[in-house]
Amino acid sequence: MEHVDQLIHAKWIITSEQDTPLENHALVIQQGIIKAILPSDMAAEHYESNVVQRYPSHMMIPGLINCHTHIAMNYFRGLADDLALMNWLNHYIWPAEKKWVSQEFVYDASLFAMAEMIRCGTTCFNDMYFFLQATAEAADQAGIRAHIGITVMEFPTRWAATTDEYIKRGLDFYEAYQNHPRIKATLAPHAPYTVADQTFIKIKEIADRHQLKINLHLHETADEVNQSVAEVKKRPIKRLHDLGLITPDLIAIHMTELNDEDLAILEKTKPNIVHCPESNMKLASGVCPVATLDKMGLNVALGTDGAASNNDLNMLGEMRSAAFLAKLTTKNPETLAAKQALAMATLHSAKALGIDSLTGSISVDKAADLVAIQLDEIETLPVYHPISQLIYAASRHQVTDVWVMGKQLLKNRKLTTLDEPMLMDKARYWAKKIGSTGFTP
Amino acid sequence: MEHVDQLIHAKWIITSEQDTPLENHALVIQQGIIKAILPSDMAAEHYESNVVQRYPSHMMIPGLINCHTHIAMNYFRGLADDLALMNWLNHYIWPAEKKWVSQEFVYDASLFAMAEMIRCGTTCFNDMYFFLQATAEAADQAGIRAHIGITVMEFPTRWAATTDEYIKRGLDFYEAYQNHPRIKATLAPHAPYTVADQTFIKIKEIADRHQLKINLHLHETADEVNQSVAEVKKRPIKRLHDLGLITPDLIAIHMTELNDEDLAILEKTKPNIVHCPESNMKLASGVCPVATLDKMGLNVALGTDGAASNNDLNMLGEMRSAAFLAKLTTKNPETLAAKQALAMATLHSAKALGIDSLTGSISVDKAADLVAIQLDEIETLPVYHPISQLIYAASRHQVTDVWVMGKQLLKNRKLTTLDEPMLMDKARYWAKKIGSTGFTP
Repeated sequence: MEHVDQLIHAKWIITSEQDTPLENHALVIQQGIIKAILPSDMAAEHYESNVVQRYPSHMMIPGLINCHTHIAMNYFRGLADDLALMNWLNHYIWPAEKKWVSQEFVYDASLFAMAEMIRCGTTCFNDMYFFLQATAEAADQAGIRAHIGITVMEFPTRWAATTDEYIKRGLDFYEAYQNHPRIKATLAPHAPYTVADQTFIKIKEIADRHQLKINLHLHETADEVNQSVAEVKKRPIKRLHDLGLITPDLIAIHMTELNDEDLAILEKTKPNIVHCPESNMKLASGVCPVATLDKMGLNVALGTDGAASNNDLNMLGEMRSAAFLAKLTTKNPETLAAKQALAMATLHSAKALGIDSLTGSISVDKAADLVAIQLDEIETLPVYHPISQLIYAASRHQVTDVWVMGKQLLKNRKLTTLDEPMLMDKARYWAKKIGSTGFTP
Repeated sequence: MEHVDQLIHAKWIITSEQDTPLENHALVIQQGIIKAILPSDMAAEHYESNVVQRYPSHMMIPGLINCHTHIAMNYFRGLADDLALMNWLNHYIWPAEKKWVSQEFVYDASLFAMAEMIRCGTTCFNDMYFFLQATAEAADQAGIRAHIGITVMEFPTRWAATTDEYIKRGLDFYEAYQNHPRIKATLAPHAPYTVADQTFIKIKEIADRHQLKINLHLHETADEVNQSVAEVKKRPIKRLHDLGLITPDLIAIHMTELNDEDLAILEKTKPNIVHCPESNMKLASGVCPVATLDKMGLNVALGTDGAASNNDLNMLGEMRSAAFLAKLTTKNPETLAAKQALAMATLHSAKALGIDSLTGSISVDKAADLVAIQLDEIETLPVYHPISQLIYAASRHQVTDVWVMGKQLLKNRKLTTLDEPMLMDKARYWAKKIGSTGFTP
C-alpha cells in the first residue's frame, strides 16, 4: 500500500479529454498533482491516505477557467442595466469607476468576486482591470489561480495617468509576482479604440521580451469596426495584424462581426479567441462565430466578462448560453455539444492562457484543480448522461467542493480561505457609498 | 386590531404592476386572497395574525406562470441532447414515449416535475401531454395551479387512437375537473402539421361551446412553415386564420419565422403568444420577435417547453434568456428590460391563460400566489435594484418560499405537499427502466 496525500472518489469523472465519463473512479493526489486515476476499488487496494473523500452522487470536472473578467466590477453588479452601451458607460460605469476605484476598492471587490467564482466552480480567471497588486493579493489569499492583465490605455484613470505609467506600474507588478505559483501577469492593451499604434508596438516588444501573453477586447461591436474603418481605413483585426500583434500568443476577446477578410487573417495567424456569449447578448454587441473559428482550427475559450454586464461570474451558465447561442446562430442543434462547451471552459481556456500542461483537464501529472458537482437533486435527475446534466440542467449551487493544486477552497459549500459574512458586509458597505452618489437612475 | 389569516413581511415587494419595488411592506392575507398591501409598520398597527412571517432580506414576487410545458417529459431530461430535431424525435423521444408513457408514468413524472417547478418559484403551468387525469391528480396533490391541454392529433398514441378518442377522453377530463379551483382544461390541438382542417374546425366548435382556450405549437421552425406552403399553399398562420382559429382566445406557442403577412394577421387578430427562448435556441428552431409583437399590442407570455429540450422548468433562467435574446436580436440593450421579462412570466402569462383577474401580480383581491427569493447571497449582492438581481443574477436555489392561494408549498426550501426523497427514488427507478431499453446512444 502506498501512502498518498489525498484520495478522492467520485461517481463520475469527466476528464475533459475523453467522451465517456469514468464511473466510480478515484483520483490519487500527491503534492497537489494528480498522480493516478483508477477505478475506486483498485485505488482502495493500492493506496492509503489520511484524507479520503467520497462523492457518491457527484460528478468531478476540471476546474473551470474564466478567460475574461473584470472581477472588481462585481461591486457595480446591477448598478445600471438595460441601457445603451454609451449611456451605460458614460453615465454610470465610468463615473462610478472614476469616483470609487482604488487599491482598497479593488482588493475588497476582488475577494468578493473570488468568493463567487469559487462557489461556482471556477479555479482560474483571466482579469483586466486596475490596481493589479490588489487583485493579486486577493488571489494569493483566496488560493485561486489568477492571470492579471497589465492594462494599458491612452486615457488617464485613478490607476495611471499615461501609457508609460500604466506600463511601469504593470511591469512592477509583473516582477513582484514573477515566481508566484498561481499568479501570472499578462499584457492587456484595453482595445483598438483606446490604444495607439505606437503603444501596441511597445507592448508587443515587452511581450516578446518577457514571453507574456497579450489579451485585449477586439471586435466587440459593429461600432468599433465601423469607427476603425472610418478613422484608419482598416478593420481592427487588419490594423493589429499589420502591427504584428495577431499571433498564437494573442488572446482576442469577444470577436463579433468577423467578415471573410478577418477570418482569412485569423486562419493564418491562429490567435486564441475568448467568447463571452452572455455579455455580448446583454449589451447587444453581436455574436462570435465559434463553430466557424473552431472548424478553422482556432482555439476558442470562454469567459463571462465583468459582472456589470452579465451579471454573474458563473461559468456553468456561460457554457449553457454558449451552447444555446451557437446552435441558434448556426441553425443546427448539433453545434457546440455539451462536451465541447465543457472543453471551451477548461482545456481551451487553459490553452489560451498557456497553462494547458498544468491544468485544464483531469489528467495524470496535471494539478488537482477540481470541482465536485452534486447531481442528486430534483432538477438534475434522472442522470442518463452526466455531461448533459452539467451543461443543460445543473445550477451553480450544486457545486459542492472545489480544489486548486490539491488545496480545498470549497468544502461542502463552505469557503475555506475566505470569510463569507465579512465579504457580504463589505459588499453592502461599498454599495451604500456607491449607490448614494447619484449614479443610480 | 383586525385578526387575519397571515401576515407576510418582505424587504422588497415587486407587484409586477409598478416600476418601483415596495420596501419594507407587508401582505395581509385572508382566505388565500391578498386583502391589503401596506408598509410593515402600519400592518403591525392594524392587523394581527397567528401566522406572521418575515423575509428581511428577500424579495417577494408574483408566482411565476410557465405558459408552455410537457411536464411528464421530465423523466426524459438528458436522454438525448445535441441532436437534429427529427433524429431526436424519431430515434429517442417518440420511441421512448411509445414504450413508456402511461397513466402511472405521467402521474409519477408530473409530481416530480411539480417538485422542480415549486422549487423554482412556479405556481402555475400550462401543459400539453397525455393521460390528463394523471397530471391533474398530481396537481391536486401538489397544490399548484394547472392548465391541462386536451391534446388532439391525427396519429395514435398510447393515450388515444383517433381524434375522436382524443376529444372524448379530453372532454371527460374537462367535465371531471370543471369545478376545481386550481385545475383548468384547455384545448390543445398539437400543431398545424399534426392536425387536419376538419379537426381544427371541430376543436373550435368545442372551444366556443365550453369557453375554453385553445393552445398549440405554431411556427416553431422554418421547416414547418415551408412544409405547409408546399402542401397547402399557405403559411400555417394563414391556414389557421382562414379556419377562424386565430383569435384573442388562442395561445400560440413558439411563433418564430414571422413575415409581414403573418404579422398583419396577428396585429388584426391579437392571439396570445408564448415565447420559449431556451427550447428555441437548444433545438435551433428560430427566434420569436417578442419586441415587435409587444409593440403591435399583442400579449407575449413566457414558457420553458418540456425539460427534454431545455433542460429545466426554471422560469428564472427563462426570463434571463428571454431578455438576452431579445437584446441581441434587436441589436438594442434597452429591449426587454428586467421588469418586462418579469411581466412576461407573470401578468402576461396570466392574461394568456385568462386568469389575470385571479393571479399574475401581487394585487389586492388577487390570490396570494407568491414567491420569496433570498437576495442576501454572494452572487446577488450588492442590491442596487432588486429586479435587476432577480433577472440577471439570481439562481433558482434562492427561491426559499412559495405560496399558491395562500397555502405554503415551499417553506424555507422544503416542499410541504410533496415527498422529495420519494420523488427522487421514483425518478431513478423510471430512468433505470428507460435507460436500459437501448434508446441512449
